[in-house]
Amino acid sequence: MVDLPEYACACGRSYEVSVGRWRCDCGGVLDLAAVPLAWSPRGDDHSLWRYADAIPVPGRRFSLGEGMTPLVEASLGGAGSPGGDDGVWFKVEYVSPTGSFKDRGAVVLAALADLIGAPRLVADSSGNAGTAMAAYAARAGVAAEIFVPSGVSEKKLAQIRGHGARVTVVEGPREETARAAVERVEATGAFYASHVYNPFFYEGTKTYALEVFEQLGGTAPDALVLPAGNGTLVIGAYLGFAGLRAAGLVDRVPRIVAVQAELCAPVAEAFTSGRADVEAWSAAGTAEAPGPGERTVAGRTVAEGIAIAAPARGARILEIVRETGGAVVTVSEKEIALSHAALAARGLWVEPTGAVAYAAVRGLRSCGSPLTEGTVVAPLCGSGLKASM
Amino acid sequence: MVDLPEYACACGRSYEVSVGRWRCDCGGVLDLAAVPLAWSPRGDDHSLWRYADAIPVPGRRFSLGEGMTPLVEASLGGAGSPGGDDGVWFKVEYVSPTGSFKDRGAVVLAALADLIGAPRLVADSSGNAGTAMAAYAARAGVAAEIFVPSGVSEKKLAQIRGHGARVTVVEGPREETARAAVERVEATGAFYASHVYNPFFYEGTKTYALEVFEQLGGTAPDALVLPAGNGTLVIGAYLGFAGLRAAGLVDRVPRIVAVQAELCAPVAEAFTSGRADVEAWSAAGTAEAPGPGERTVAGRTVAEGIAIAAPARGARILEIVRETGGAVVTVSEKEIALSHAALAARGLWVEPTGAVAYAAVRGLRSCGSPLTEGTVVAPLCGSGLKASM
Ligand SMILES: Cc1ncc(COP(=O)(O)O)c(C=O)c1O
Ligand SMILES: Cc1ncc(COP(=O)(O)O)c(C=O)c1O
Ligand SMILES: [Zn+2]
Ligand SMILES: [Zn+2]
Repeated sequence: MVDLPEYACACGRSYEVSVGRWRCDCGGVLDLAAVPLAWSPRGDDHSLWRYADAIPVPGRRFSLGEGMTPLVEASLGGAGSPGGDDGVWFKVEYVSPTGSFKDRGAVVLAALADLIGAPRLVADSSGNAGTAMAAYAARAGVAAEIFVPSGVSEKKLAQIRGHGARVTVVEGPREETARAAVERVEATGAFYASHVYNPFFYEGTKTYALEVFEQLGGTAPDALVLPAGNGTLVIGAYLGFAGLRAAGLVDRVPRIVAVQAELCAPVAEAFTSGRADVEAWSAAGTAEAPGPGERTVAGRTVAEGIAIAAPARGARILEIVRETGGAVVTVSEKEIALSHAALAARGLWVEPTGAVAYAAVRGLRSCGSPLTEGTVVAPLCGSGLKASM
Repeated sequence: MVDLPEYACACGRSYEVSVGRWRCDCGGVLDLAAVPLAWSPRGDDHSLWRYADAIPVPGRRFSLGEGMTPLVEASLGGAGSPGGDDGVWFKVEYVSPTGSFKDRGAVVLAALADLIGAPRLVADSSGNAGTAMAAYAARAGVAAEIFVPSGVSEKKLAQIRGHGARVTVVEGPREETARAAVERVEATGAFYASHVYNPFFYEGTKTYALEVFEQLGGTAPDALVLPAGNGTLVIGAYLGFAGLRAAGLVDRVPRIVAVQAELCAPVAEAFTSGRADVEAWSAAGTAEAPGPGERTVAGRTVAEGIAIAAPARGARILEIVRETGGAVVTVSEKEIALSHAALAARGLWVEPTGAVAYAAVRGLRSCGSPLTEGTVVAPLCGSGLKASM
């Protein structure tokens, strides 16, 4: 047996990691039994495996060159840099092999699939997670089947197929895609390499925090502003700093500010209402902003990466922002567009979702919110080279 | 006066660096008066400015997160990795801010523009250099005008404009674009941020070699296989290893193998014919391969990044491959396509030009050529996310 932490559910059940196990018998999402974080970065490794000792997947390590993404000052250079960006750092996640931070989670799931001997994996995604899983499955030599909703661009399909993955296009709303993937998993016993359900994905996104800590000279920033759809980066970044805190390397986890699009903001709504759990919005996908009486209809935001109407780990996101003194905030379509333009004017080229964290920073700073006082790190989480246009 | 090396021409003339100087009075291209390479990498800097002491531009340093790109083993992971890839390393240049190695040169030209007080710069490019210059000019706060040939994709134009640069589209063959750029430079006194003419660009691409050296544990590989259109990476990589040799850190420069597309191979032709200089091909841009009697007509290769019919520094490329015991080789459209697919099947997603170096490695290895014996480094030089599709 390989030495892996166990899957654990909030209901108290726990399970050994195996190819077929992807959620609790009670239906709940699985976490990992906590493992203390081993802090011993490998100075000469510039990939995410620099933090191999902190990632509980002891096996072959595949790399496409993910991790150790740049941290650049928002206001550096550029005559016209607004003073409002003092202390703001961008973590340039779009400089990742498949163009987004999802590579951090995907590489760990691919290594896990290899370690536990999964001959094939299944993933479902309309966006970056699907491409990332296809690429890393190819690198690991694991057969992959990716379920995508209809409407995904030809370009993206060509990439997924180029990586040798089988693509299954599913008609209907996004949830149907997930349902079809789960059916295949149940029917075939394939490994469900889900960025939503598999907690090892968060062991990968955790490295975001470890890099920030190291790149800021062994300190924690005051706040992390992070996009939140399913919360893979929010949860991963929390795990990283919580691990560093437990190891005595920082004395607190930075305020975590999760950002949603106004047009699809179920977690923000729950946060504002003081609820412990998230009520799903219906994913109508209309082009209009919801009216005052219809806040539960998700509109079609340009920030498609965070347009998640029913986030399975919504309660965890709420816990995290509350524990760290953060918040869940929303940004409008207009603010996203303006921030996208402001980044481009500084030479930074993101997909629309990649502008939401900075849009939130601008909004919070301009109204003098204490949430973004001090040193703030915001990811530029996805590449503008992918946008269809 | 800032402390910069002088521009020097093979004819013996030399010039102080100034905003308006971009070629010799004799019409020749300018190099830099040799400066010994100072080897003192800044261990905690993961950008190209890790090698700031080796880059003779002492001024403000702008970064979008370029440099320190991953070096990954070709055969690692993946059950089906062919043994022919033993000792082959990929330098993943597409994990760069604008998606290609051109960022290395662009960041240095932007820093130089800032240092010498150029209020505006001009560049001409149909491809990656134009986007890179626009992005870095934006970061540096220098106004930019980018000349592009007609036919450049809307997507690319949107990016260049997004970075605040003025775009001028020039009808006619590629050379017309360069001519229009030069006219604007001469008429306005703008800084000509040319990847072809300005030798500081090569001080940036030089870092490719410095990283390879450091990433291989302070050793040189046996061979560098590099794409060659104008040769910015060939010349830069040579400068880097020649600098390391002069500093006593390696005892020889690796064999440099320059790769051209069969359909546009003026440097390969000169190499094979034993000539010291390159005869320009006529850039007909036809879709057919040249027949036996018409080797001087450039066809339209998918490897558009290296489709340069009249490389201004062709003689230098020839010198370099001859001095290092390398060669100039060609790859066919078919070999490029097969290599692109082989990379994708391993999770690596490049634009067609990004597959030519690996195509050459495969070809040379399969015929048992001594050129690619031992440790070989090939760049994956441009991102597949950009391809139009
Ligand atoms: C670029 C980008 N940013 C942010 C997100 C949101 O991540 P999550 O849904 O895990 O919160 C995604 C998800 O696909 C993404 O692709
Ligand atoms: C991806 C890519 N590879 C290779 C090259 C060739 O570089 P050079 O013309 O400097 O030899 C280019 C030039 O634009 C490029 O964009
Ligand atoms: Zn349970
Ligand atoms: Zn001269």
